[in-house]
Amino acid sequence: MAHRARPTLETVAERAEVSRQTVSNVLNAPHVVADATRDRVLAAIDELGYRPNVAARQLRTRRSWVLGLRVPPASDGISGQVLDRFLHALTEVAQQAGLRIMLFTSGDDADEVREYQNLHSTAGVDGFVLANTHAGDGRTRWLTEQAIPFVTFGRPWDGDRSAADHAWIDIDGRSGIHAATRHLLDAGHRKIAFLGWPEGSGVGDDRYAGYLDALRTVPTAAPPLVRRCEDGVPTGMAAAADVLADDDVTALVCVSDSIALGAMAAIRDLAHTRPRRPAVALTGFDDTPVARAVDLTSVAQPVDRVAARAVGLLLSQMRPADQRVTMSAADRHVLIEPRLVVRATSQVPV
Amino acid sequence: MAHRARPTLETVAERAEVSRQTVSNVLNAPHVVADATRDRVLAAIDELGYRPNVAARQLRTRRSWVLGLRVPPASDGISGQVLDRFLHALTEVAQQAGLRIMLFTSGDDADEVREYQNLHSTAGVDGFVLANTHAGDGRTRWLTEQAIPFVTFGRPWDGDRSAADHAWIDIDGRSGIHAATRHLLDAGHRKIAFLGWPEGSGVGDDRYAGYLDALRTVPTAAPPLVRRCEDGVPTGMAAAADVLADDDVTALVCVSDSIALGAMAAIRDLAHTRPRRPAVALTGFDDTPVARAVDLTSVAQPVDRVAARAVGLLLSQMRPADQRVTMSAADRHVLIEPRLVVRATSQVPV
Repeated sequence: MAHRARPTLETVAERAEVSRQTVSNVLNAPHVVADATRDRVLAAIDELGYRPNVAARQLRTRRSWVLGLRVPPASDGISGQVLDRFLHALTEVAQQAGLRIMLFTSGDDADEVREYQNLHSTAGVDGFVLANTHAGDGRTRWLTEQAIPFVTFGRPWDGDRSAADHAWIDIDGRSGIHAATRHLLDAGHRKIAFLGWPEGSGVGDDRYAGYLDALRTVPTAAPPLVRRCEDGVPTGMAAAADVLADDDVTALVCVSDSIALGAMAAIRDLAHTRPRRPAVALTGFDDTPVARAVDLTSVAQPVDRVAARAVGLLLSQMRPADQRVTMSAADRHVLIEPRLVVRATSQVPV
Repeated sequence: MAHRARPTLETVAERAEVSRQTVSNVLNAPHVVADATRDRVLAAIDELGYRPNVAARQLRTRRSWVLGLRVPPASDGISGQVLDRFLHALTEVAQQAGLRIMLFTSGDDADEVREYQNLHSTAGVDGFVLANTHAGDGRTRWLTEQAIPFVTFGRPWDGDRSAADHAWIDIDGRSGIHAATRHLLDAGHRKIAFLGWPEGSGVGDDRYAGYLDALRTVPTAAPPLVRRCEDGVPTGMAAAADVLADDDVTALVCVSDSIALGAMAAIRDLAHTRPRRPAVALTGFDDTPVARAVDLTSVAQPVDRVAARAVGLLLSQMRPADQRVTMSAADRHVLIEPRLVVRATSQVPV
């Protein structure tokens, strides 16, 4: 064995003309090292073949600085793309903080817990980001019991919140739909219908509540008028055609961009078949690429802000125990305001 | 230091009641171990706190079994979603083969090369998957020079192919558009227009060639008729409205789903404004979620097959040098046939 020839931290430091500590920093906390210095150290590491350093670093720090993220099965829906955008944003923010994202897939919750264990025990993954929380979530319970750092994109939907007092970030859908409805009320619309999902989904019910909230702020608004359907373009088209048979309805607030896209086709047909009917204003939810493509007013989920808070909450959990600060529930539970993106479909003469 | 108390491979083997070799297999080649045994070993590893094993494994095998994949900036376009679907498929196939995907982001090509170096040198990433190849690609040259395993999703578009003789997999877009055009010709359409991107993009020109190929197979087909525009829904709508002023045109082959979505709106308008005009058949490209949502015939990129071939090509490069098999160019350069998904928009009476 040419053991004496193996490059060490010292030989790298010498080659890069920096201190041993600087080389160590490049390996353990690259974000504290100036770019030019880091490049020089990396070049020296490369020339000398000092590899794989991650192994030594991990043995030393007992941290891999890698976060696990499950990729859901490729979604058929238009709205599933929010998670794809979140994945992009998370990778970017994590990288800036010196963390990497490792992907995995899994089937049901039990299978996902097995993957957590696998990734934590044998691949040294330090923490996890979970999307798509649901009532009675066994995954968050397991991670909490194991004291593995994690954060969820999505609040716990259990009735009993105390059962899941973990760190989470979510979008305030209620407030987003409130803003969309207010936008239409402010423009003078009075009979506004809501096209929603079937009752019983936490996310859908929360958005519907925002519509009701907004109507209550304007005494002259017509009473709530709701049509419910499964998410989709054809279902949205049928629901819109149905509710628009009433000529007094001049605006539609949709729970998703898919349903809004269907409504858009129904509105287009009406413009031809009943040209004297009042025009119809329309809003969607998620600000998907297709919303931008067809000029649809929609509610945007600021996934970059979600990603930034997720990384912050994870880093605070990953600190050595003696440096950890106890966070209040208010700090660990973050509800982010979405943003109404006004485009052509909501700006029609009343 | 409680060094004597540190759990070893032996204590894990004893606890799990398996051989030392089985524990080693769980760490180094988990796919060869039965699920139940692996679970038992993982439980023992966990109970004893034998962690992080990945470090020791990496020091021993000099392989991390991790592949790097750059996530492009979140795309605004409808068609950018193919790469998101590829990412899902790659994660799944890689995991089945015992590999993990680590994500990173970067700016320009030079920045991306710095990230390769960073990930390879300090994070021990074994190989890379590149999407979005382009002419004069400095990234592939660098990886080739460094003898780092990699494969690209996308063929080299350089005139001089020998400059980039690396492993690649691509979708045969020419053949996909050929199939879409043939499908319309077989249904009896004779004057078929092509809505394409501006000339000069490798991908776009390749797809256009498929349209020309197909027209040549049917002597009674009208001569090629092409409108070119930037990708997008409004541009597609304008191009379609323009070419459909000619009532003899009864079918449109579109280079993308975005353009097809715009064409769909133009066709919808025509049905109202000129109801006696012949109906128009329509095809898109990419089989995006929105194509499924609006029942648009489209050409599907089988990203799962691309992912499977990518992992296979990488694994063969990652073998120890003495076990590596020399592959012919035909084995390293894989062109995959896309699949025409026939839906309502192409099935109209001629």
